[in-house]
Amino acid sequence: MDARRILLVIFDGLGDRPLVELGHKTPLEAARKPNLDWFAANGVNGLVDPIAPGVPAGSDTSHLALFGYDPRTVYTGRGPFEAAGVGIDLKAGDIAFRGNFATVDEKMRVANRRAGRIHEGTAELAEAIDGMKLGRIKVMFRAGTEHRAALVLRGRGLSPKVTDTDPHELGQEIRKAEALEPAAKPTAKAVNAFTKQAHKILKDHPVNRARVKDGELPANAIVLRGAGVYPDLPPITERFHVKAAGVAGVSLIRGIFRAVGIDMIEVKGATGGLDTDMIAKADAALAALDSNDLVVLHVKAPDLCGHDGHASEKIHVIERLDAMMGQLKPNLPADVVVAMTADHSTPVAVKDHSGDPVPLTLFGEGVRVDAVLAFDERSAAQGALGRICGQDVMNLLIDLAGRAEKFGA
Amino acid sequence: MDARRILLVIFDGLGDRPLVELGHKTPLEAARKPNLDWFAANGVNGLVDPIAPGVPAGSDTSHLALFGYDPRTVYTGRGPFEAAGVGIDLKAGDIAFRGNFATVDEKMRVANRRAGRIHEGTAELAEAIDGMKLGRIKVMFRAGTEHRAALVLRGRGLSPKVTDTDPHELGQEIRKAEALEPAAKPTAKAVNAFTKQAHKILKDHPVNRARVKDGELPANAIVLRGAGVYPDLPPITERFHVKAAGVAGVSLIRGIFRAVGIDMIEVKGATGGLDTDMIAKADAALAALDSNDLVVLHVKAPDLCGHDGHASEKIHVIERLDAMMGQLKPNLPADVVVAMTADHSTPVAVKDHSGDPVPLTLFGEGVRVDAVLAFDERSAAQGALGRICGQDVMNLLIDLAGRAEKFGA
Repeated sequence: MDARRILLVIFDGLGDRPLVELGHKTPLEAARKPNLDWFAANGVNGLVDPIAPGVPAGSDTSHLALFGYDPRTVYTGRGPFEAAGVGIDLKAGDIAFRGNFATVDEKMRVANRRAGRIHEGTAELAEAIDGMKLGRIKVMFRAGTEHRAALVLRGRGLSPKVTDTDPHELGQEIRKAEALEPAAKPTAKAVNAFTKQAHKILKDHPVNRARVKDGELPANAIVLRGAGVYPDLPPITERFHVKAAGVAGVSLIRGIFRAVGIDMIEVKGATGGLDTDMIAKADAALAALDSNDLVVLHVKAPDLCGHDGHASEKIHVIERLDAMMGQLKPNLPADVVVAMTADHSTPVAVKDHSGDPVPLTLFGEGVRVDAVLAFDERSAAQGALGRICGQDVMNLLIDLAGRAEKFGA
Repeated sequence: MDARRILLVIFDGLGDRPLVELGHKTPLEAARKPNLDWFAANGVNGLVDPIAPGVPAGSDTSHLALFGYDPRTVYTGRGPFEAAGVGIDLKAGDIAFRGNFATVDEKMRVANRRAGRIHEGTAELAEAIDGMKLGRIKVMFRAGTEHRAALVLRGRGLSPKVTDTDPHELGQEIRKAEALEPAAKPTAKAVNAFTKQAHKILKDHPVNRARVKDGELPANAIVLRGAGVYPDLPPITERFHVKAAGVAGVSLIRGIFRAVGIDMIEVKGATGGLDTDMIAKADAALAALDSNDLVVLHVKAPDLCGHDGHASEKIHVIERLDAMMGQLKPNLPADVVVAMTADHSTPVAVKDHSGDPVPLTLFGEGVRVDAVLAFDERSAAQGALGRICGQDVMNLLIDLAGRAEKFGA
């Protein structure tokens, strides 16, 4: 068999639980979705536990699993993937944090954790901090969306085992980072020196002077959380011998794509929000298949509705996802194997990730087809794939694409 | 979602195989059980391999798995859990044995392995042995039900890798414990010293003098089997942040409850036998939900019928289990997640544990519901949970109860 191409579509947080208000259906069961159902009816279906049955997965750990990595061994925290997602070029061993621009008073007490939801001037502020030296440790600092930012420390003997400086509560002083193991003491020291120097740089920065003048809160401090070490991941391109590209709006997912060697495709209108242009994303994914073996298409929107607890909005988003798959369907080359799945469930009733498994459909020429007729949680449970785990998915795709290496002879 | 409470009901040895005499139905399929079926019809179902497909589980290893521990790493023998079950307060590293009071002749040959099924005076006999010193090793000894007893050795450098002293056959001398590895030599020596000293203490004990006078066999020796080391188990209360209590009649299960941090609830009429008062157990479990996050309700009876090879008796027991669930059903608070399962199959035709998987039903507000309408082996195989393993069950429950921690972000 000639090697085929792969399109992996990931609907973030799609899985759900039955809701009384939907007549005991899940949002996926309640939505009108002829295209999603068409793929399910013409493919093979099953349920996926992103990590293991009953374990609620983060989007980060789950994507690592879906790309064939064991998150239990490679994942130490969200920071490194956020940092990669905002464009910092990390190396294995770098320590990274997620951060916020915040407002502190003269005693370093946090008056506002988001500096009044600052959304302009953060790139300039970040630039003033980026490149700071803390002894032999190199500092990389980049602004993210709105008040968000990422910090990377590079140097010898660093450890991610340090506590957050973000007090997570108003009126509290920015916390001293503490070492959770003796080897992490130099890192904690560097983080605390960073907090001081960043404050020194930011407090009189022209951007903040202008903000104060305009009656806005100054972004005069950085609070940090989610320390992690950037893992040494053998790229997906080498592990599976595929040239890979991806479409994703949110920085965490973009960071994971970068970390595993998936090239980012920039799509106008792909925001990672509810306003994202799904049709543009579908067109970009189709175009990317021309020059890639694996294309990953990620849509954040269903997860947002789950977190917000909005059933009707989730149904609406699913119907837009259906239109996106309808855009793909007539234009798919015959040699493309398609997977549709989710990274985890975000039930409307839970308003957070849950350990419920998610549906998976595999579709392609010659792929075994089962009796399942619809793409939803209950139907998937009747599928011929049975119940598998996230780390199996990439192996299944690579095999159906005729790209797998035999184990044995 | 607010955290919910959990009721885990374990029907010991419930799983079975089809029997010709039941028209090729299993006892569970042949029984009239509207309440068990109600939970199955209104919940989500699947099959559980307590350990792994085709591996017959003991009640001990299976319960450890159902409580989320890996029996392959924490289990070395039944002794420690029996010892905990009869009330000995064990510490990690203690070596424990199951034992019988037996009758030996002057040459230490076993004339009766159960001392004529002695059932009175064993507490006094055990007290005479308890506290014995074997060099630096401390001896704890407690009588169990009827002729049964438990021995615990506490000291440095002990090992469970020693052979039984129980010859398991009449007319044979009590065996010398042998070390199965060099490091176990001091333990074997201590066990053999115990056998001698116990005989010395027991042979002229007033209880035995009276027995001989009454024409009964003296309980003049202890035979030992099932050596194991008491594991260092992080309690379920810490692992899952739940306050837990349990109802169980048999000492092995009570010992496992104690070992994992489940408080024992004493129920009048709960015997661990066929005569147990199941309605009283149900009422006690309901009452325990008032002050606990997790309540475990264990019923031994179906296992006994399996071991005895009595199909009709097993059906009768299942109909009593149904009445027990019928007692629970109308009284369950809305926030309780219910699991019904078994620790293993004990097929009537096998008269012992088999590797057949067991049904699992999960029921609770908002839990995904599947098309399964009955609680039995064949129906469960069609359920949306698919086929999972024993160690997954606690994770599923903790997630459905809104108590799981996200892995990742």
